[in-house]
Amino acid sequence: MHSFTDLVPAFEERFTASLPFSQFPATLYEPCRYFLQLGGKRIRPVMCLMANELFTDIGEDAWHGAFGIELFHNFTLIHDDIMDKAPLRRGKPTLHTKYDMTAGILCGDVMSIYAYDEIAKIKTALPLVLRAFNKTAIEVCEGQQLDMDFEQRNDVHIGEYLHMISLKTSVLLACSLKIGALVSGAMGDNANKLYSFGANLGVAFQLQDDFLDAFGKTELLGKQNGGDIIANKKTFLHLKAMELANAAQRKEIEELLKYDGADKVPAMLALFTATGADAHCREAVANYSQLAYSCLEDVAIQSKRKEPLMELADYLLLRDR
Amino acid sequence: MHSFTDLVPAFEERFTASLPFSQFPATLYEPCRYFLQLGGKRIRPVMCLMANELFTDIGEDAWHGAFGIELFHNFTLIHDDIMDKAPLRRGKPTLHTKYDMTAGILCGDVMSIYAYDEIAKIKTALPLVLRAFNKTAIEVCEGQQLDMDFEQRNDVHIGEYLHMISLKTSVLLACSLKIGALVSGAMGDNANKLYSFGANLGVAFQLQDDFLDAFGKTELLGKQNGGDIIANKKTFLHLKAMELANAAQRKEIEELLKYDGADKVPAMLALFTATGADAHCREAVANYSQLAYSCLEDVAIQSKRKEPLMELADYLLLRDR
Repeated sequence: MHSFTDLVPAFEERFTASLPFSQFPATLYEPCRYFLQLGGKRIRPVMCLMANELFTDIGEDAWHGAFGIELFHNFTLIHDDIMDKAPLRRGKPTLHTKYDMTAGILCGDVMSIYAYDEIAKIKTALPLVLRAFNKTAIEVCEGQQLDMDFEQRNDVHIGEYLHMISLKTSVLLACSLKIGALVSGAMGDNANKLYSFGANLGVAFQLQDDFLDAFGKTELLGKQNGGDIIANKKTFLHLKAMELANAAQRKEIEELLKYDGADKVPAMLALFTATGADAHCREAVANYSQLAYSCLEDVAIQSKRKEPLMELADYLLLRDR
Repeated sequence: MHSFTDLVPAFEERFTASLPFSQFPATLYEPCRYFLQLGGKRIRPVMCLMANELFTDIGEDAWHGAFGIELFHNFTLIHDDIMDKAPLRRGKPTLHTKYDMTAGILCGDVMSIYAYDEIAKIKTALPLVLRAFNKTAIEVCEGQQLDMDFEQRNDVHIGEYLHMISLKTSVLLACSLKIGALVSGAMGDNANKLYSFGANLGVAFQLQDDFLDAFGKTELLGKQNGGDIIANKKTFLHLKAMELANAAQRKEIEELLKYDGADKVPAMLALFTATGADAHCREAVANYSQLAYSCLEDVAIQSKRKEPLMELADYLLLRDR
């Protein structure tokens, strides 16, 4: 059995060595290589490998699944960066900034096809894998569309927000685990429980991210906190505060939205606390985490084999056990 | 056996009735439906059905192939329209013009996934179909990238141009035929000959299109001729004229490129004729057509069954037999 930290460098090495892009046209494939070498935590593909190793030695099919998932994830990042007009990713210029819009669109397109090309190499349970992958891929697009829509709306409910982050963030984590299980030949029931583990873990992780962006210690995050507040992002904290606020508090929040800059962060944090939004957010993180752990417990395999996935969940949710 | 003109309305009806898009999010799927109802000649999907009927009654797998190919083709059109900054398609606003850039990118993305979802429903020879489809999908992206690159270059050779139009136009026609054959259980050899038929037919058709845009009769085209000349497009005629021109003629062509507007069309046509580029273009159309017909002849099935595909080729190449 391998831990997450064992598998990340193993994935990195094999992924880099087997990138499918040819040399020509360089205008298409050079930007693809640029973007992929920006790195990333590689959580999704490594989860696919870990789910596979729950049931068997990590096999070729799991590697194809992991490569396909990582290529697909990067395709969505490239296109999201265009839609979000983001200049930087991981401290480096985004693809469409370094090259141009055409490259941004087309490199994303071709990367998504290469993702399918990796998935298509899978031999075990290919129709099931394709069905899971397609469903997820469609949901990720829907999640991004909802995220864009919400920027234009002032009446987003918490339920809609949870649905959006589930589509945009969780389903691909969940699908990675499911594919790792399916290609091991694991029963559908185990694969579905791993899917639910990933789906709940993803929401817990995203809500924790919302919380830490506001209340986290700067040294822990490696970035200034309050970024979401400065950007007027409609996070769980913001939406919950609006929901719980009395008339005076709501007016205060609406006033703060009109101001730009970091000055407003302390006032908004005070409102998150005064309305009780912070406590609700902590509670939601705890609930989704609990659900995630119990789904993992339900997977019908010896507990010892689940240790690496448990540790990864602990790490993502910043838990000491 | 059905003719092309029989199958177009049959495809149209079944495709419209089985569009996979749900109602929600409407911001994502309403634009998808808008774009697909703009219509089109449906040549590619119907070719898939016709290739299938060469060998067997048209089956479910062929319909899935046809739907997948048409969805994929429309995905490429949506993204190409963004890259080409095209305001209109088939006389109606392009998707990103009617909605916005985000919708353009994301509707294209989700349509490509639905294309894969249709392909994934195929039961016969799925791994072979996926391999053919992926190879083609990658080539179509490469073709679009080369087309974009050529706009910035003044040293494009005829060989490069032929390669580009082959990737951008022909391979998807060819792949449609191949998939129709593969899902009938036809031997790989027949499927590959149909692929070559489509690949050559596609190039012949595109070169004929270049020729007609310059020399075609306006009433035949339904549009003013000389559009490519006015847009300074590097077509076969343009590239060949530059290649064959003497110093004086080359200077004349370069001068004409500096002027905008329809006035320059007669002068450029005269140069296409004087350099012999027009005759070379006709010859190239004839050669690729001949190659296409001989590939179709080589398919090992009774000639009578090939009649509908022969008629379609005649129709596309404006031939009377």
